[in-house]
Amino acid sequence: MSVAIRQKSLRSHCPINFGLEVFGDKWSLLIVRDIVFFNKRTYNEFLASKEKIATNILANRLERLKAADILKCTRCETDKRSEIYSLTEKGLNLIPVLLEISYWGAQSDPGTAASQSFVKAYKRDKTALANALQNRLRRDEPINNNSLHTLI
Amino acid sequence: MSVAIRQKSLRSHCPINFGLEVFGDKWSLLIVRDIVFFNKRTYNEFLASKEKIATNILANRLERLKAADILKCTRCETDKRSEIYSLTEKGLNLIPVLLEISYWGAQSDPGTAASQSFVKAYKRDKTALANALQNRLRRDEPINNNSLHTLI
Repeated sequence: MSVAIRQKSLRSHCPINFGLEVFGDKWSLLIVRDIVFFNKRTYNEFLASKEKIATNILANRLERLKAADILKCTRCETDKRSEIYSLTEKGLNLIPVLLEISYWGAQSDPGTAASQSFVKAYKRDKTALANALQNRLRRDEPINNNSLHTLI
Repeated sequence: MSVAIRQKSLRSHCPINFGLEVFGDKWSLLIVRDIVFFNKRTYNEFLASKEKIATNILANRLERLKAADILKCTRCETDKRSEIYSLTEKGLNLIPVLLEISYWGAQSDPGTAASQSFVKAYKRDKTALANALQNRLRRDEPINNNSLHTLI
């Protein structure tokens, strides 16, 4: 189990603090975002994201998210060197957190790149949107950010 | 405007990235939590939280949250040396984010200190809970974590 969630080393058992100790940094949730909204699954795909994560930070965060049981990792059948990452159930439970951060960002950034489809779907029924995204990921079906409103 | 939200220096305009650049660290949301759930309003009250934030980090995060228009600060009428912090509307809009992180933490930490009252209220209607909390804070009314379910 990672340092981040080793029970004895927690700063407190406040549930907000717990979340921040596990994924509260500038990078971890971007990896979760890449899996949910950009259909990325491999180290090289995460590395190519526009926020330009450094290789050592990416490797560290992938290990921490695996240790925290948010990510799981399997070897690709056609290429043993390539590891395929996906979300565990605990990771899928982060989708409502992603949606709320996303809506806050969409409201707060004048130059936001948030899609109208997301805002529309979020306002219509954010719980249904989270459920739809979780179900698609469980079936490993790709998600199109410009048609999120059609999912619910 | 702070470095965190200066438009030109943003890593990207992805709304999740925007949120993480503004409050994506292990401490910022604990200050927002202290205001929402623990009725704290001053530097010394934030400093006394059980996660033991360091003085320099607290001072830095308060400045950043003010610059990001999440916190506002007024001088206490009875003691000019004591600054009183509260949430702006943009800060109040972070409450749904706090609730989702809190619910994830409550589910994921075997030793969670989350109140049953919170879990009950969240499951009943998380949007109504967020609205009720925002309205109480706008009226500067204290919030009791053990009676959250009575708010909705």
